[in-house]
Amino acid sequence: MRIIRSLAAMSEVSRKLKEEGARIGFVPTMGAFHQGHLSLVRQARRDADKVIVSIFVNPIQFGPKEDFKKYPRGLKGDCKLAKAAGADFIFSPDKDRMFPRRFLTHVEVYGLSDVLCGRFRPGHFRGVATVVAKLFNIVRPDIAYFGRKDAQQATIIKRMVSDLNMPVRVKVMPIVREKDGLAMSSRNAYLNKQEREDSAVLFQALNQGKALIKQGKRNRKDIINKIKAIINKKNTARIDYIEIIDPDCLTPLKAVRGKALIALAVYVGKTRLIDNVLINSQPGN
Amino acid sequence: MRIIRSLAAMSEVSRKLKEEGARIGFVPTMGAFHQGHLSLVRQARRDADKVIVSIFVNPIQFGPKEDFKKYPRGLKGDCKLAKAAGADFIFSPDKDRMFPRRFLTHVEVYGLSDVLCGRFRPGHFRGVATVVAKLFNIVRPDIAYFGRKDAQQATIIKRMVSDLNMPVRVKVMPIVREKDGLAMSSRNAYLNKQEREDSAVLFQALNQGKALIKQGKRNRKDIINKIKAIINKKNTARIDYIEIIDPDCLTPLKAVRGKALIALAVYVGKTRLIDNVLINSQPGN
Repeated sequence: MRIIRSLAAMSEVSRKLKEEGARIGFVPTMGAFHQGHLSLVRQARRDADKVIVSIFVNPIQFGPKEDFKKYPRGLKGDCKLAKAAGADFIFSPDKDRMFPRRFLTHVEVYGLSDVLCGRFRPGHFRGVATVVAKLFNIVRPDIAYFGRKDAQQATIIKRMVSDLNMPVRVKVMPIVREKDGLAMSSRNAYLNKQEREDSAVLFQALNQGKALIKQGKRNRKDIINKIKAIINKKNTARIDYIEIIDPDCLTPLKAVRGKALIALAVYVGKTRLIDNVLINSQPGN
Repeated sequence: MRIIRSLAAMSEVSRKLKEEGARIGFVPTMGAFHQGHLSLVRQARRDADKVIVSIFVNPIQFGPKEDFKKYPRGLKGDCKLAKAAGADFIFSPDKDRMFPRRFLTHVEVYGLSDVLCGRFRPGHFRGVATVVAKLFNIVRPDIAYFGRKDAQQATIIKRMVSDLNMPVRVKVMPIVREKDGLAMSSRNAYLNKQEREDSAVLFQALNQGKALIKQGKRNRKDIINKIKAIINKKNTARIDYIEIIDPDCLTPLKAVRGKALIALAVYVGKTRLIDNVLINSQPGN
């Protein structure tokens, strides 16, 4: 496995791989790997000839009061894990090379970026779309992998790729969970013992919501209130939002039918966690 | 020469050309060809193995009160001219395929897009950057050609390509002029006889500005006022702006030195014309 720092070197490697007719699988990440990330790398290994994993803590997707500085970093450990999962290249560019001082261009997916997490994190998804567009242009992948834990991000990336005719296929992979159901996240490392214990409530509450829908409940507000009540039992929890939405256009479903996504963002202590479950509420499912 | 309408077919042709190792030269246009366009096609013919010319009147770069509907169109004549100049492919996509109803993604080059023409045409350069990003992803050119008449556009495209790491080289080609100095433009067709005669004043006035700088004049306001006075002698002329700027960052030069661009937009009758001259005001030039 080769570790590449320079944008020009990565571009050149990709150009050559394409010239040789290799199919490139690409996993863009911010590092601090858990089994969620590694499931993407393993899938890329199965699908593609060459697997490129980028590790870049993207400054422009963090708000001024967010955790850019303390976000967990550990390139050495990440490289070992990525190699074991099947990566051929790690691309870990320098922040000032990715975003030089006079960087002016941004990609914005209007309508999908200012709802849900976007309401609480202005500019976040513009930062995500912009860095992913850059990475796609440098790495030129055939397939790119994203986790469904970041469901809104996945929807936005798919829309950007389709709207801008980017020559890449996007695969969104299932959420990987801890034994107690907590969705794996690099930010789980911030939780203390009590918070870690309490955070299992998110998946329990989502499952409760899913069960209500399966039982035939259709009223969005009622279902959301039930989920809220379960989460609010935990003293460490503070809800940013809970919403039931159409997974493609991210608009709230007044009456829950067809494909639905229950998505939430909840602070547990000072750590903001997100999670979601996908439901097909059609009769017979 | 082959005419391609479908986005998928164009993508596939480009993919195959790349696979064969062909260098693709690309000239994105809105059609209504004059010698300015054709000079780009001829340059592409000299540089590249295959020359692709797109003809697409881009709806999202026109304001609601602008001339999208009456913009001159003539695919048949354009195809003949492009073929004679050396084009291998014409890509002429359908508006609704390029911009389906739920199109959400935009590329914006902040700082460069809201000055000069951007002040008078809000959203224009976002529309240009977005369509060019799409065309680059479909056509995947090695080199793309733009005319320096649209100097602000060229600066914005170069910045977008660099900021987003697009794997394409941008070549900006000199302005082609009529005998009396009027910069060639598809919109010149809107001018009546008197207006056409009067419009020669733009290049005369720009040249007067250039001469003042060559004579050692450095005061931006004085030079602009001299240019204004010349243009205002024509009854049909109404100035949108005249500015002396740094050609890379498009900011006004308080004292004119180094490389400078005198750029203007002037209505002649109801037709908005733009033009510019590039000056190297260093001593010895």
